[in-house]
Amino acid sequence: MRLGIAQTNPTVGDIDHNLAGILARIAEARSAGCEAVIFPELALCGYSPHDLLWSRGFIARLQAGQEAIREASAEIGVIVGGVIVGGRRAPANLWDPSSVADGAGEKRHNVALLFADRETVGAQPKLHLPSFDVFCEERHFSPGAGSEVFRLCGVRVGVNLCEDMWVEDGPTGVQAGLGAEWVVNISSSPFFLGKAALRRRIGARLAGEHRIWFVYVNRVGGQDDVVYDGGSFVCDPEGNLRFQAPYFEEGLFVVEPESSRATAPPEERDTDLLRRGLVMAIGDYFRRNGFSQALIGLSGGIDSAVVAALAAEALGSDAVNGVSMPSRITTKESRDDAHEVASRLGIGWEEIEIGEAIETLSDSLSTPPDGIAAENLQARTRGVLLMTLANQRSAMVLATGNKSEIAVGYNTLYGDTVGALAPIGDLYKRDVVRLAEAYGERIPERVRHKPPTAELRPGQRDEDDLPPYDLLDRILERLVERQASRSDLLAEGFEASVVDDVLSRYARSEYKRRQLPPTVKVTPKAFGSGRRMPITHGYRG
Amino acid sequence: MRLGIAQTNPTVGDIDHNLAGILARIAEARSAGCEAVIFPELALCGYSPHDLLWSRGFIARLQAGQEAIREASAEIGVIVGGVIVGGRRAPANLWDPSSVADGAGEKRHNVALLFADRETVGAQPKLHLPSFDVFCEERHFSPGAGSEVFRLCGVRVGVNLCEDMWVEDGPTGVQAGLGAEWVVNISSSPFFLGKAALRRRIGARLAGEHRIWFVYVNRVGGQDDVVYDGGSFVCDPEGNLRFQAPYFEEGLFVVEPESSRATAPPEERDTDLLRRGLVMAIGDYFRRNGFSQALIGLSGGIDSAVVAALAAEALGSDAVNGVSMPSRITTKESRDDAHEVASRLGIGWEEIEIGEAIETLSDSLSTPPDGIAAENLQARTRGVLLMTLANQRSAMVLATGNKSEIAVGYNTLYGDTVGALAPIGDLYKRDVVRLAEAYGERIPERVRHKPPTAELRPGQRDEDDLPPYDLLDRILERLVERQASRSDLLAEGFEASVVDDVLSRYARSEYKRRQLPPTVKVTPKAFGSGRRMPITHGYRG
Repeated sequence: MRLGIAQTNPTVGDIDHNLAGILARIAEARSAGCEAVIFPELALCGYSPHDLLWSRGFIARLQAGQEAIREASAEIGVIVGGVIVGGRRAPANLWDPSSVADGAGEKRHNVALLFADRETVGAQPKLHLPSFDVFCEERHFSPGAGSEVFRLCGVRVGVNLCEDMWVEDGPTGVQAGLGAEWVVNISSSPFFLGKAALRRRIGARLAGEHRIWFVYVNRVGGQDDVVYDGGSFVCDPEGNLRFQAPYFEEGLFVVEPESSRATAPPEERDTDLLRRGLVMAIGDYFRRNGFSQALIGLSGGIDSAVVAALAAEALGSDAVNGVSMPSRITTKESRDDAHEVASRLGIGWEEIEIGEAIETLSDSLSTPPDGIAAENLQARTRGVLLMTLANQRSAMVLATGNKSEIAVGYNTLYGDTVGALAPIGDLYKRDVVRLAEAYGERIPERVRHKPPTAELRPGQRDEDDLPPYDLLDRILERLVERQASRSDLLAEGFEASVVDDVLSRYARSEYKRRQLPPTVKVTPKAFGSGRRMPITHGYRG
Repeated sequence: MRLGIAQTNPTVGDIDHNLAGILARIAEARSAGCEAVIFPELALCGYSPHDLLWSRGFIARLQAGQEAIREASAEIGVIVGGVIVGGRRAPANLWDPSSVADGAGEKRHNVALLFADRETVGAQPKLHLPSFDVFCEERHFSPGAGSEVFRLCGVRVGVNLCEDMWVEDGPTGVQAGLGAEWVVNISSSPFFLGKAALRRRIGARLAGEHRIWFVYVNRVGGQDDVVYDGGSFVCDPEGNLRFQAPYFEEGLFVVEPESSRATAPPEERDTDLLRRGLVMAIGDYFRRNGFSQALIGLSGGIDSAVVAALAAEALGSDAVNGVSMPSRITTKESRDDAHEVASRLGIGWEEIEIGEAIETLSDSLSTPPDGIAAENLQARTRGVLLMTLANQRSAMVLATGNKSEIAVGYNTLYGDTVGALAPIGDLYKRDVVRLAEAYGERIPERVRHKPPTAELRPGQRDEDDLPPYDLLDRILERLVERQASRSDLLAEGFEASVVDDVLSRYARSEYKRRQLPPTVKVTPKAFGSGRRMPITHGYRG
């Protein structure tokens, strides 16, 4: 079987554009002699259109696009993720206009469509709809009733979708029992560190256990706060890996698994995947929103240096401008470091003195601010100036906050939080340091190794206000990713005073997180759409 | 049957506080001779704790609280909303750490607990879990398997929860069929205009159709972006209304429905409900987050005047400060109007000239801003100063944007959007005007009737940039609340150029909406947690 694995990068909602890409890949696969070509889950509309699915116009265009794909399937088999509508969701909420607005009266299925020779071979709905983390598929879809096996290009094929392979007793076993020789899983599975190896382990286990060829096809690309890593693969009925597609790379991969040799999984270094994922997330966000220029407030610290390095990779160093905004308390060292970061990365650099602006703003108030108010004023003056430059140049600002700061609210809302995207908002400080080290000399050594400081008052160091980052990060990881309670943390030996301080900061800063730009998810639990937390609440762990 | 209807206002997550309130209401009901007392859905933890439900510590405290309620049920029946945990959700996603983090391995039920004489009479899980608009119950809960009828205080009672009454063929009929004489629905049902009458119509229909007494118990209070209106009621087996609790009022209402007379539904004026709902939302948000002082940027326009009036009602006029921040283009009329608004409302007033600050900020840039960049700089300077005052005084800023502006992005991110809460963010301009009229002379006539202006450039009027608000609002309503597509709007006779302009503004401003403070929901579809929309997408309607 000669297969085309189309690891595509659809734009959510841009059905015409995605359709053109799919038709081109079908033609390419046909020319390359493929018997079948496989696209990811929701490949035509992009994962996830979310509430656009309630628009009747959107569904109508999607259906027209699906017909066009069928028409294009002359002399080739096509498996592609789509949406079908039909019947009523039962029981319907007939009285509540909000439910009607959300289309609850209409059933939608997230399906794999199978076409060949311009005919519809079948449609397999997804059976297991995820409603956790960033997923809310039960909001939009109804689950399918069961599994089928189809004959495509002379082979018995079972198809399932994303979550279907992650659950115990999912459809793969049923499909194998119904005689499937090949089981295909089409996915739109967001990246987080360690997930690629997990997927491959599951695929190999399913293949070996059920004695089937297992084909996994995942999309790539950035979509707001998630990035998809691709990494499509094929396992043979012994559970050996026969093909592995690259990560974060769009492309049509032509494979003949039966005549390929078993291969070892590629060596995957976390920092490398992290870097490539963030670069793709930034690049796609800018491109798809019609921007090419990035602005970054360069403080001379490690966070803004890493964001600048990522942006330079994603957009080209010519498209990135570092803006240093020293106040009267900014040290010469910080100014020099900011400049040095820009020159090592080859990005634009400019310096704006903000001392006078801060003074004028302070003086306009009847009581000049001090303490936290003065610190925040400093950060917010920078935010205003960055946004003004962005408006002048049609550029987007990248926010430079990391996950450790965001978790404890060690940031200034409308100050250092401003921006269109927060590329390192899901990286604990230790991961930022790791990434900086991976950039080597492109980020000056002094920047990589000096003690972190928000530099909002003379001589300030983050660790004067917060627990040391290595301790803080270990607590946060348990709190954010594993929902540890106060007593869990105490049982692990963390000091009560530190735990209480962190718990209190974590709860009190929820309102800031609600107003952040999207942070790119790289862990199992990022701040953003995968975490649904009340601002107002009285639980203190 | 002498019933206590406990229309409570729980604080999400503050289990100790909510428990104390519940125990006090039980004692009060017992003293008042009630045979049973009924509390709302999730009364102990407050609706909705969302992802706090994944915390093992949270669940443990909840269970302890539920035990304490059982212990307190000596000589009285109690129906109260709680959570029970047990078994595994099948099939479990065993491999995905994010799923494990979200507690997908553990089944939780949203239940009504029935206690009497310190014994557990039963637990009825919710059968229909809403996953639309602000609801995401399938994320946290599993549905119950079926309905039971319990004997409580000598009566056969069926209990169901919120959504269970809104669906076709819900459990009320089954419970009546199993012999229930009384059916109780406990709810945490968010307010929107027109919903109270809908609920009563459903309750009357269920009661009459199934020949049962129907008791509806709903919570009150503000919780971030929703406000609960209460309005608990009782219908008799002929479908007549026998009791109606007030809206937006916490309290224990002692009723003997069988000996009460049938009563006409209260006259409910939309503007009155709107006002009371927003006042409760503001008051609870401040109180629960530990703030008492509000700051509002007063422009002299109608939006900020209405927000100031609402805040004065919610917090007391002494607790509200209007801040007027004239620039060099602000007219004398605007300054006077801002001052006049403050004095009519009896709130604090101060004026901060921002001309010099804007100039200094502009001058610090190599190219002084003009056009949109200059307009935004003006709005952002105001944002910075308001936030500085808020930091100095431990006050919270109320954002003054309305739904029409927010929908088309006619606002400045980090400028007029700053704040902790956006009280009128779900009111179209026409609803703001209606509310202003209801305040009568407390809001000066000139403020109510002058043409809206953002006043960011000399002589600017909103309608120079946007379609007239009456036209804009009619388009937006169809777009936001009814997911109308471009062709739907054209078919209704709206002009193509206007429709395209609005569609484009609506799509392009999604990134701003993502960073807004919570807006209080008063329509079936508010911006905020009930609307899940990608920022990056290529669909243009």
